[in-house]
Amino acid sequence: MFVIITYDVDKKRVGKVCKKLREYLDWTQNSVFEGEISTGKLTKCMFELNQIINKKEDSIYLYQVNNPRNIKKVVYGQEKNPLDLFL
Amino acid sequence: MFVIITYDVDKKRVGKVCKKLREYLDWTQNSVFEGEISTGKLTKCMFELNQIINKKEDSIYLYQVNNPRNIKKVVYGQEKNPLDLFL
Repeated sequence: MFVIITYDVDKKRVGKVCKKLREYLDWTQNSVFEGEISTGKLTKCMFELNQIINKKEDSIYLYQVNNPRNIKKVVYGQEKNPLDLFL
Repeated sequence: MFVIITYDVDKKRVGKVCKKLREYLDWTQNSVFEGEISTGKLTKCMFELNQIINKKEDSIYLYQVNNPRNIKKVVYGQEKNPLDLFL
């Protein structure tokens, strides 16, 4: 399936959340990750994220589209290179 | 259709981009908006955003799902209240 994950977490936990998401998905911009992922890996990813976040302060939004052909992505302006994150 | 729009724009233009998106969609968190919108309104929205952003520096990602039933949203932790933005 195709997923988009956006997060709004306290800066104390941003690094950990970002690192965890990078294990499973591609970074797109700011606090947004996306990519194709299996149900099993997604369950594992969300379980691990749930252990990192403070549920009273942070939030993670998961958008799931079972068939990647049902979602279309259009970029306006500059497409950020995922590698920029590591430079 | 259902759309998710995320943006990464210079802080000089964040206010304008955010205000424009609020005319058409619901704010969810950080730099993410979502909602159901007609093709005509979406075209208008993207045209107007294109006039605000600097295409060499900013980026706007548009994810479109024609049938809203094909996308599922799950929130982990706190669901941000859209009204928080106006408080």
